[in-house]
Amino acid sequence: MLNDSALLDRVFQALADATRRDMVERLIRGPASVSELARPLAMSLPAVMQHLQVLEACGLVRSGKVGRVRTCHIEPGVLRMAEDWIATQRTSWEHRLDRLGDYLTDYPDVPDQGSTS
Amino acid sequence: MLNDSALLDRVFQALADATRRDMVERLIRGPASVSELARPLAMSLPAVMQHLQVLEACGLVRSGKVGRVRTCHIEPGVLRMAEDWIATQRTSWEHRLDRLGDYLTDYPDVPDQGSTS
Repeated sequence: MLNDSALLDRVFQALADATRRDMVERLIRGPASVSELARPLAMSLPAVMQHLQVLEACGLVRSGKVGRVRTCHIEPGVLRMAEDWIATQRTSWEHRLDRLGDYLTDYPDVPDQGSTS
Repeated sequence: MLNDSALLDRVFQALADATRRDMVERLIRGPASVSELARPLAMSLPAVMQHLQVLEACGLVRSGKVGRVRTCHIEPGVLRMAEDWIATQRTSWEHRLDRLGDYLTDYPDVPDQGSTS
């Protein structure tokens, strides 16, 4: 079982490739077979399978086989985890800007550093 | 100049490492010198510099040197770009669920696949 930090490593690593992001975008629209996933991509089926393995290893995608057809679907919870980490940073940043804004409102006449007045 | 897709590759790659995420979390709280960034990390200064280079290469972090002190600060716009990509996927996913919900509300008596009734 991966801890949250190791899982985030893998999720961001999985998203650090345009082909894998294309596959995620396709699966967000609904489940797809491996050949449907491969169709718009200019690469061999084994290469597509390798990308799929990366997406499955971090839990972004699950797949199941019925007969000869493997169907893939997205697991949005893992994507949400990555979004939450970034959103937490953005919120902290915005709070910092707010505090800076409050400070400048409370002390509008604080001279610039280096001012000689 | 990187296009958006190549930039996203680099940003997600930069975030795919717990040490670099720690550095981003620290810089979100405010600018820091390289030695301040390195202090809580159990690694050599050259290793910290390597991580910093990855963060600078994708524009997540900028740094400037005054005298012997290099000070780093975060560039939140690039982080926002990564968040936007993920948020777009989540929104598309939620719309798909909404459409599915509407369908099930409009046609509540559609039998399950495989039903023999």
